[in-house]
Amino acid sequence: MNLFKLQHMLKEFFIEDIGDNDLSSTTIFPADEAGQFSFYAKEDGIFCGTPIIETGFALLHPSIRVTMHVAEGARIAYGDKLATIAGPIQLLLSGERVVLNLVQRLCAIATMTHAAASQTAGTTTKICDTRKTTPGLRMLEKYAVRIGGGYNHRSGLYDCIMLKDNHIAFCGSITEAVTRARQAIGHTVKIEVEIETRAQLQEAIEAHADIIMFDNQTPETIREWQQLVPETIVTEASGGITLDTIASYAQSGVHYISLGFLTHSVKAFDISALVELKGALNA
Amino acid sequence: MNLFKLQHMLKEFFIEDIGDNDLSSTTIFPADEAGQFSFYAKEDGIFCGTPIIETGFALLHPSIRVTMHVAEGARIAYGDKLATIAGPIQLLLSGERVVLNLVQRLCAIATMTHAAASQTAGTTTKICDTRKTTPGLRMLEKYAVRIGGGYNHRSGLYDCIMLKDNHIAFCGSITEAVTRARQAIGHTVKIEVEIETRAQLQEAIEAHADIIMFDNQTPETIREWQQLVPETIVTEASGGITLDTIASYAQSGVHYISLGFLTHSVKAFDISALVELKGALNA
Amino acid sequence: MNLFKLQHMLKEFFIEDIGDNDLSSTTIFPADEAGQFSFYAKEDGIFCGTPIIETGFALLHPSIRVTMHVAEGARIAYGDKLATIAGPIQLLLSGERVVLNLVQRLCAIATMTHAAASQTAGTTTKICDTRKTTPGLRMLEKYAVRIGGGYNHRSGLYDCIMLKDNHIAFCGSITEAVTRARQAIGHTVKIEVEIETRAQLQEAIEAHADIIMFDNQTPETIREWQQLVPETIVTEASGGITLDTIASYAQSGVHYISLGFLTHSVKAFDISALVELKGALNA
Amino acid sequence: MNLFKLQHMLKEFFIEDIGDNDLSSTTIFPADEAGQFSFYAKEDGIFCGTPIIETGFALLHPSIRVTMHVAEGARIAYGDKLATIAGPIQLLLSGERVVLNLVQRLCAIATMTHAAASQTAGTTTKICDTRKTTPGLRMLEKYAVRIGGGYNHRSGLYDCIMLKDNHIAFCGSITEAVTRARQAIGHTVKIEVEIETRAQLQEAIEAHADIIMFDNQTPETIREWQQLVPETIVTEASGGITLDTIASYAQSGVHYISLGFLTHSVKAFDISALVELKGALNA
Amino acid sequence: MNLFKLQHMLKEFFIEDIGDNDLSSTTIFPADEAGQFSFYAKEDGIFCGTPIIETGFALLHPSIRVTMHVAEGARIAYGDKLATIAGPIQLLLSGERVVLNLVQRLCAIATMTHAAASQTAGTTTKICDTRKTTPGLRMLEKYAVRIGGGYNHRSGLYDCIMLKDNHIAFCGSITEAVTRARQAIGHTVKIEVEIETRAQLQEAIEAHADIIMFDNQTPETIREWQQLVPETIVTEASGGITLDTIASYAQSGVHYISLGFLTHSVKAFDISALVELKGALNA
Amino acid sequence: MNLFKLQHMLKEFFIEDIGDNDLSSTTIFPADEAGQFSFYAKEDGIFCGTPIIETGFALLHPSIRVTMHVAEGARIAYGDKLATIAGPIQLLLSGERVVLNLVQRLCAIATMTHAAASQTAGTTTKICDTRKTTPGLRMLEKYAVRIGGGYNHRSGLYDCIMLKDNHIAFCGSITEAVTRARQAIGHTVKIEVEIETRAQLQEAIEAHADIIMFDNQTPETIREWQQLVPETIVTEASGGITLDTIASYAQSGVHYISLGFLTHSVKAFDISALVELKGALNA
Repeated sequence: MNLFKLQHMLKEFFIEDIGDNDLSSTTIFPADEAGQFSFYAKEDGIFCGTPIIETGFALLHPSIRVTMHVAEGARIAYGDKLATIAGPIQLLLSGERVVLNLVQRLCAIATMTHAAASQTAGTTTKICDTRKTTPGLRMLEKYAVRIGGGYNHRSGLYDCIMLKDNHIAFCGSITEAVTRARQAIGHTVKIEVEIETRAQLQEAIEAHADIIMFDNQTPETIREWQQLVPETIVTEASGGITLDTIASYAQSGVHYISLGFLTHSVKAFDISALVELKGALNA
Repeated sequence: MNLFKLQHMLKEFFIEDIGDNDLSSTTIFPADEAGQFSFYAKEDGIFCGTPIIETGFALLHPSIRVTMHVAEGARIAYGDKLATIAGPIQLLLSGERVVLNLVQRLCAIATMTHAAASQTAGTTTKICDTRKTTPGLRMLEKYAVRIGGGYNHRSGLYDCIMLKDNHIAFCGSITEAVTRARQAIGHTVKIEVEIETRAQLQEAIEAHADIIMFDNQTPETIREWQQLVPETIVTEASGGITLDTIASYAQSGVHYISLGFLTHSVKAFDISALVELKGALNA
Repeated sequence: MNLFKLQHMLKEFFIEDIGDNDLSSTTIFPADEAGQFSFYAKEDGIFCGTPIIETGFALLHPSIRVTMHVAEGARIAYGDKLATIAGPIQLLLSGERVVLNLVQRLCAIATMTHAAASQTAGTTTKICDTRKTTPGLRMLEKYAVRIGGGYNHRSGLYDCIMLKDNHIAFCGSITEAVTRARQAIGHTVKIEVEIETRAQLQEAIEAHADIIMFDNQTPETIREWQQLVPETIVTEASGGITLDTIASYAQSGVHYISLGFLTHSVKAFDISALVELKGALNA
Repeated sequence: MNLFKLQHMLKEFFIEDIGDNDLSSTTIFPADEAGQFSFYAKEDGIFCGTPIIETGFALLHPSIRVTMHVAEGARIAYGDKLATIAGPIQLLLSGERVVLNLVQRLCAIATMTHAAASQTAGTTTKICDTRKTTPGLRMLEKYAVRIGGGYNHRSGLYDCIMLKDNHIAFCGSITEAVTRARQAIGHTVKIEVEIETRAQLQEAIEAHADIIMFDNQTPETIREWQQLVPETIVTEASGGITLDTIASYAQSGVHYISLGFLTHSVKAFDISALVELKGALNA
Repeated sequence: MNLFKLQHMLKEFFIEDIGDNDLSSTTIFPADEAGQFSFYAKEDGIFCGTPIIETGFALLHPSIRVTMHVAEGARIAYGDKLATIAGPIQLLLSGERVVLNLVQRLCAIATMTHAAASQTAGTTTKICDTRKTTPGLRMLEKYAVRIGGGYNHRSGLYDCIMLKDNHIAFCGSITEAVTRARQAIGHTVKIEVEIETRAQLQEAIEAHADIIMFDNQTPETIREWQQLVPETIVTEASGGITLDTIASYAQSGVHYISLGFLTHSVKAFDISALVELKGALNA
Repeated sequence: MNLFKLQHMLKEFFIEDIGDNDLSSTTIFPADEAGQFSFYAKEDGIFCGTPIIETGFALLHPSIRVTMHVAEGARIAYGDKLATIAGPIQLLLSGERVVLNLVQRLCAIATMTHAAASQTAGTTTKICDTRKTTPGLRMLEKYAVRIGGGYNHRSGLYDCIMLKDNHIAFCGSITEAVTRARQAIGHTVKIEVEIETRAQLQEAIEAHADIIMFDNQTPETIREWQQLVPETIVTEASGGITLDTIASYAQSGVHYISLGFLTHSVKAFDISALVELKGALNA
């Protein structure tokens, strides 16, 4: 993760929530009142968020001490103590909600990814994400997918070519689309082609696509098509796949299953914060 | 909504996705190739996102034309055409995913809020949001709550005092906490107090809290306590309330029910984009 | 105060003044030459600016040491030593003017606020500010008002509704305007209504405005009208009130007097800096 | 004036005031409700602010029309109509306060500068500003000084050398300080030396300082010293000069009088806005 | 190219040069004085810079008209008229230097790339760039390489893995390094391996590296090694290759030659601007 | 140099190169793996870049230790060890290329400036730069010119007036142009006039230009003209001067020779980085 970007994001998020002043904390607590709180898991899952907690509170004040009780990517269960943060209580309370909003989201993504990946057990199929991430949070959400045992599809429009129906229709054929793309880009960029028929599959193979995506196909069709694909081409299944159907897709031999819901449809992972007041900082 | 902030956000989001170049679009389509696509609802719900679509595509290019087919806040059903966008196909495709990522999230929030608000039919209880929003998106998510028929709780730590257990514990009593807060702030800021017992309720009433929040109470308790609250104090129920239990809470007479899941746990509302190619822009 | 915002502002201000280079300091002084200076009050007033001095010089270099000799909000008199700053003389001189420009302004606001608040002695009336602040400095100027013993009116257009003559004229009546506003906003936002006649006052009371502002009225009128206002409604006097007339307004029983001149018309508080050179940092 | 910087500043200032939403305007007025208002002078002075009004409202919406009724730098009198702005009433009201806060400050500076410059009538002495400007507003405040008939001293630490007592003390002599500075900088940068004694004056002249500043001297002393200065050196009087004493200083023959109070101690110039509602934009 | 990024960059660059004011232009020319200038090539080469000229002057003022006389990527010769820009002369002069500084650099890169690519005529070898670009200008410089007939290597550290000597040494072997990388990344990212010996080449082939870079090898060695590389692996030659030796490398059959000097060592392409004054804009 | 600006620039540059992730370093090296590398000169020249190395790596991580082996501005020879940097190897590798890209450019500029300045040995002529710098890097490139023994011409359009042919043509004469400029600006700004004929020279002298630039003249002409210029006016030669002709220009007695190629046409100074791995940080 790029710490410069993370720090910049966290500052923006704290400013969004705190505005000119945390009225409640600064009104009630003296600036030198110490406190600490701990985060506890309120459900089972995969933990993800150490850089958020550590970097976030460090930004709020260098004197804040963070102790992590679980490792990044560890399984956690209801009731587990996740982290303890100690420092000026004013600032702890000012930062708590922003940090939790992020960590709860990242844990949810990691947990969902882990659940998806578990469905591929015993196969060589891997789970990956999509560009269907929350605007502004892509770096973090793709990080959570990795922590949860998934893999990252392209980061954005800039690091991989995807030729979809519109690109192909405009060019007249997959062959022409791949050729045109290959001529325009350098050797570090892969070309992925979405296909929906066996004829398209054949054409994509002959055009030497780097990646072929089976768009909205059944596991049975994919199993059959996968046999036709040479070893040097990576395959991906996408479209309408749910937690319940992952296993059947994984049985097809496809290399990757890409899932938008990992990042666009998770429920916040339940985490609570328990505060313990501690008296003046200098006492 | 603050358009300066919206424009700034959208630019950041487009840069996140496009990076230095949309490799696929610019490789395949000539810059002057015209196209258009329409967005279609793939499920039933409440539409929210007009400013995103209009401002987003205007930022991509002033020549892009947006036609909205549904009103902001309208009920939409599976298959409804939502909007048509026409212009340089390169730019339409470069912007599509970012716009959809946002609009699908806002529709989901508006739809969920509407579902929640529907449960209060026949009562005077209103649904409101919390600070449990996606970092960076609070302005938009709170907007979607309003579009869905909900109300906004405070925008952040800066525009309302909330005295929770920790503030009260530190001060020794609700009375002392409210007094200390009242002395520190101006007359435009309200003070909300979280209470968990009837004794606390009594104390909060006597301290002239502006808003009293019943934290994690049953509908029955709230109904009983609500009777004790003078007309000039607003009440709010919070904690552990689900779509299924809203109705019973609404029957209690409480003024507001605040729901974190409106913004932290929605699944992306399903919307698809259908592209139609149109030949050169000047043709 | 939000330290993220303060740090960002101070960096911008230092860049505005220093540009690519402080030609004088870097040309004359070696980088490791130590120095120190102290700030002295050149008039009597209320001190305000500790966060500016401490955060400002800390940003310039972590090795700079700041010693405050007076407390934030303390009365200071001509000749009082306010603060001593020691560190690399190059950087002390580079930062001096920006820090003084801010601190002199904040002391002026705090001093003026204190003068205004002193005129309300023996009454329960409080002094508050307005949105007539210097663009870019609102957080700091409203902070100085608090330090001077005043209170903050709304922070901006986003945290309180004010219904003025134009809003009311458009709606046709105060009743309609308040109703429309109440329906649109959540329970944490107050509604203030500006009134100019007794009939309007009556209407605002019946509409349950949270705050009623007596716009451009004499103390006598306000005294009379104040009697009519129920306890649960806060009142405010505004318009054409000067230091000389505050006392008579305070006698009227009005709760708040809002004063634009606290922030838009103060003269820089006179502070001088006396430098003492100290030899090389390592010597 | 640099329009990129002005636009950036205005956006920041609008965001500071509007936050996520102008609650009052958007709650009361439909988005397509047209309106207009005019600004009127409430005192006599020099007008300054055309770029603020034109650029500010253009940023709020391209459909807003601004008509200026007075020229930049013109004398204005109580009651004069200054500008008329027409467009969506919601946006007019959202932008009014920020624009006025700036324009009232710029008019005040231009008016004060004009008053100061008037005191030099019949002499060749010019009035100039200092670096004692409001942090964040230097470009605008120095512009207002020019509009008021004054001249700009250096823009910041980066475009002119000023050798003050500390620089000279460290170097041991004016000669050494000027020599050291001259060796370090290019030929486009001037060197100004602050002097307090006749001996220092002599030394500064012999060191070929480009500008000599008479620091805290009486008009009589300056008149005497001015005779000694060769034609090629510019002179400046500074320190403790007030509106009342400018004329006597101007009689001394000094070239420039620099005045901090032009920018750090002005009272907001009184301007009022009169709104006229106009019905729906499309009507 | 990402226009949001380009616009942001150009604004920053104009602010760097103009500061608070273009003293010369605004002092001499009335704001409504029209003018125009044309850019002329002062040497032979490849033109690159249309988006800079068009977007740059559009940002300065929407009324400025740009007419391009040569196509992006066209060969140009000494004396060719490249573009004509007409509008307010003040703004034309304010923007000229920044635009030329960029365009002269981009033409230089495109021209150098074209010279390099010309050396590969009759072979299938392609020329590509490196990460040795000017900080802040990578998007533009890589664009110029494409315009000049070259290809882009990876955009940054984020879109391709390169395993160099240090990575390999730490892992103990190329096999282990590739394996570790492959396990960590998704299927859209390629892995490039730098090799220096035939044994390493063999290992990289067996590890299924996507790209193999021959680091600092002679054309003869590369020719020999190239024979050993299966068709599905892309090869690249790098290190110490000059314009004079490109042809011999291209004969080796290597797929790509990467050249740092395309972007880090070009001399500004000579372009002059000829101004023609035109009288008042409204005349 | 302004450290706030330098830090901001470096962060932007690191983000440009690292993006969301340095895939290679983070994939191969554990976060706590220590390492160090040293920079070595691969050619002879003048070193420039200490602030880049020190500030750059400090930004990447506070635990990174930088040891400089040569002084800023020192002569360096092929093979010299320049600096050693030790810390987490992941971060060292993430930052290496950006730092080198900058330092190689600054060393190139300092070395070229030194070469130019050496040609003026035995004369009083000085070498200076122009505004032909890389957009975004002006502060750094002008710093490198100073380190190399050159002087800075104006920083931008904001700190010195230059009256060129267009300004003069519009005004009708040099006299009129200088008069108009002098009336508009303050006393800290110099006025430079470009002249091409002896008549223009005479006019510029009589107009009391502060600086006269001999535009595109031979050394012989300049020598002759230089005699005519009074001592109080600074002279500058510009246009078509190369390393080979500097000496003859310096003999002319002209005060400054300004050279665009110092900043727009240097080849990256060759520096290599040698990495040494060191085992776990805590070991």
